[in-house]
Amino acid sequence: MNLDALKSTLGVGGYIDEPTDMAPFLTEWRDRWRGRTPLVARPDTVEKVAALLAFCNAARIPVVPQGGHTGLCGGAMPDESNTQIVLSLGRMNRFRSVDADAFTMTVEAGCILADIQVAAEEADRLFPLSLASEGSAQLGGVLSTNAGGNTVLRYGNARDLVLGLEVVLPDGRIWNGLRGLLKDNTGYDLKHLFMGAEGTLGVITAAVLKLFPRPAQQATALLSLPNATAAVKLLSIARRQAGDDLTSLELMPRRGLEFVVRHMPGCRDPFASPYPFYVLMELSSTHTNHSLQDDLETIFTEAAEHGLAADGIVARSEAQRQDLWRLRESMSEAQKFEGGSIKHDISVSISAIPEFLKRAIAAVESLIPGIRPVPFGHIGDGNIHFNLSQPEDADKDAFLARWEEVNGVVHDIVAELNGSISAEHGIGQLKVDEISRYKPAVEIELMEQIKHVIDPNEIMNPGKVLP
Amino acid sequence: MNLDALKSTLGVGGYIDEPTDMAPFLTEWRDRWRGRTPLVARPDTVEKVAALLAFCNAARIPVVPQGGHTGLCGGAMPDESNTQIVLSLGRMNRFRSVDADAFTMTVEAGCILADIQVAAEEADRLFPLSLASEGSAQLGGVLSTNAGGNTVLRYGNARDLVLGLEVVLPDGRIWNGLRGLLKDNTGYDLKHLFMGAEGTLGVITAAVLKLFPRPAQQATALLSLPNATAAVKLLSIARRQAGDDLTSLELMPRRGLEFVVRHMPGCRDPFASPYPFYVLMELSSTHTNHSLQDDLETIFTEAAEHGLAADGIVARSEAQRQDLWRLRESMSEAQKFEGGSIKHDISVSISAIPEFLKRAIAAVESLIPGIRPVPFGHIGDGNIHFNLSQPEDADKDAFLARWEEVNGVVHDIVAELNGSISAEHGIGQLKVDEISRYKPAVEIELMEQIKHVIDPNEIMNPGKVLP
Repeated sequence: MNLDALKSTLGVGGYIDEPTDMAPFLTEWRDRWRGRTPLVARPDTVEKVAALLAFCNAARIPVVPQGGHTGLCGGAMPDESNTQIVLSLGRMNRFRSVDADAFTMTVEAGCILADIQVAAEEADRLFPLSLASEGSAQLGGVLSTNAGGNTVLRYGNARDLVLGLEVVLPDGRIWNGLRGLLKDNTGYDLKHLFMGAEGTLGVITAAVLKLFPRPAQQATALLSLPNATAAVKLLSIARRQAGDDLTSLELMPRRGLEFVVRHMPGCRDPFASPYPFYVLMELSSTHTNHSLQDDLETIFTEAAEHGLAADGIVARSEAQRQDLWRLRESMSEAQKFEGGSIKHDISVSISAIPEFLKRAIAAVESLIPGIRPVPFGHIGDGNIHFNLSQPEDADKDAFLARWEEVNGVVHDIVAELNGSISAEHGIGQLKVDEISRYKPAVEIELMEQIKHVIDPNEIMNPGKVLP
Repeated sequence: MNLDALKSTLGVGGYIDEPTDMAPFLTEWRDRWRGRTPLVARPDTVEKVAALLAFCNAARIPVVPQGGHTGLCGGAMPDESNTQIVLSLGRMNRFRSVDADAFTMTVEAGCILADIQVAAEEADRLFPLSLASEGSAQLGGVLSTNAGGNTVLRYGNARDLVLGLEVVLPDGRIWNGLRGLLKDNTGYDLKHLFMGAEGTLGVITAAVLKLFPRPAQQATALLSLPNATAAVKLLSIARRQAGDDLTSLELMPRRGLEFVVRHMPGCRDPFASPYPFYVLMELSSTHTNHSLQDDLETIFTEAAEHGLAADGIVARSEAQRQDLWRLRESMSEAQKFEGGSIKHDISVSISAIPEFLKRAIAAVESLIPGIRPVPFGHIGDGNIHFNLSQPEDADKDAFLARWEEVNGVVHDIVAELNGSISAEHGIGQLKVDEISRYKPAVEIELMEQIKHVIDPNEIMNPGKVLP
């Protein structure tokens, strides 16, 4: 590899090659993957990204694009061969324009999600995408993995929030598709090909994002439920009453609440008696002439009449709202205190959630007696984080050693229900072996054909997504 | 061409070959394109579609998919060579399932849009896609052209209403991507490639559609405006007040209203004085605990305070609502009484609409003195039907003979504003020569590469979309 030529292509300040300085780009926060690289490229313009890819394509040097490095599937990590260049987009972080009248914003890939939210707010607009890692996650990574988060029910996934893209193709050509158009029927929709491709087809360098009016009020409640079917029925009642004001509908099981109350400081069970399931429901609206709290109460009353909800609490202050959300947001963290846990990020059709839970819980309990399922997640998206805590007093390492075996059992049920084995987090390296098992062969073939024609030299993020 | 073998592949009832019976499949309602075919295939199962394509692919016989045949760009018409088979999807018209709890419905390509709306209603759900030709348009065509319509501002284009697809590829392989999932990050998003491809990459045979809660109320108003900029500003005010309850915001110019009042029975100008522009605004909501009419009045008051609206009328009955909509919906029809008209279906960024109108009107007036522009359309989508009536007393044929010249002038301005020359209607045959002029070369190249790898024998809808 002619590193000197590569460096001169990038120019002074356009790369890092000191091992200490490169270390943060080569470790992930869950420390699951490790990689090596001779160079971290840090171009600050689309032209430099283009020059880098043209160079690497000609020299057959693999390139691993990287954003905020907050992914959970190893998608932004080079392998250990020390032959793959890391392309960090962090210096491409300009806000090119905000157009409040058009409800759009043109932003570079290295901009941090939380900063994008703030820039939208300053224009009296909402950019709704919101996720746990928003303080570090960069737009390029968010789009390349089609991130989900807490507002999908209302605003869609990341791809739904994009009107146009700028992409550098593997051979260094720049595709300027930065059109801020809500309607454009002039040929194949290429932007949806690059979003969710995890950097295997090219590098997203900028996007035109959709903005929304900012909500003027929100209201939050916690309801207790007899079973998971009630949560699905509750969704229908809530959507009929509140329509798109329904922003979140989050399921939590009793065991999850117990873990949170046991381990997380300041968290308590707000109800006097225990219930099998809980749902955190949040509404938000631009309207100021009616009360969303009234809507919540109407929804609860109807749910109670149908035996779908036993008890309910409406947050009366922002502090109470935060308390309710903390229960939901601590669900994953609290599990750590209960030993090892084996995780899944699955989705099924909303109406199939109860059957999935019934079958998957029975299957894992039969496989590992005493296992403690803590399934929680986004009911309105059909997305369940099916997390399983080890049996009490079991050996943690022995339990975690069965990760793939348990995944196999759970994912087989997901496949039988025509669901997805990666609802939010993508494929990366983590699930690359699994997708050939669960995806129709013709779909894999189409993906491979497209990959081959766009990246014939296979320089873009090798070993990710495609089996 | 071995027609007998083809017929036996399709089976009895699976094709039409009598010239009289084939005639309806070979004429378009605007009578702009004519075509010839030896056979109209009418398979009623996905397996038969697959068998047909496998046969035609092996024999290099071109196939032209056709739905309700309501397109405006010649996309579903064979050429005059008598060598292209028409594949009519009309007999693939089963409603495979409706899942109200999951807010989804699985429907075959030959189902008529209006029937889909009714089936959703029967499940107490809304399928929001609505367009003038909904009584004939079939789902397959609607998705293949990514149709727009009257509710894009609120619900998105056709592609935004689809969760999964079943597609027969050019070589006869069936891709079953009928997943009813709101979240699925397991590789490239192939469904968006087939939607909007106008049948050039394969044949959509079924889809999982997104359903929505049915609105419980709607409210409609007509506002008079001093200029087009006011319409853009009004959009911001209306969205801030009404959020997603804002379903339609339709611009009409004074001249258009005059044409409608002059020629359409029962239509009258509801205002005492003339105004340069009008906006038809409609809100709809699932909420029953507040009045949308109040919202309309709040919006009008704020608009009036900022000098954006001069006068306004809120429909107080369904009959009054219909009267207001008739003004908008007669806009195209009324122009026919004023002689020839040259049409455009363009979109620009919402905030660029006033500049587009100013420049495009000046350009066409300079080109053809006395020309009478009637620009109307969907402000919230940035989509203007820039229709131009001939000068009074001009020769109709001489005027229409300048169609392409006028298109060129208008589309150059659209391109300078980074807009689209086909917002809703697609490319078909009509604009196939234009897209190489207006699309970036790299985008055309990507489209051609994808076309080549998926349909190497170029049997799918030749001569459409790709230059």
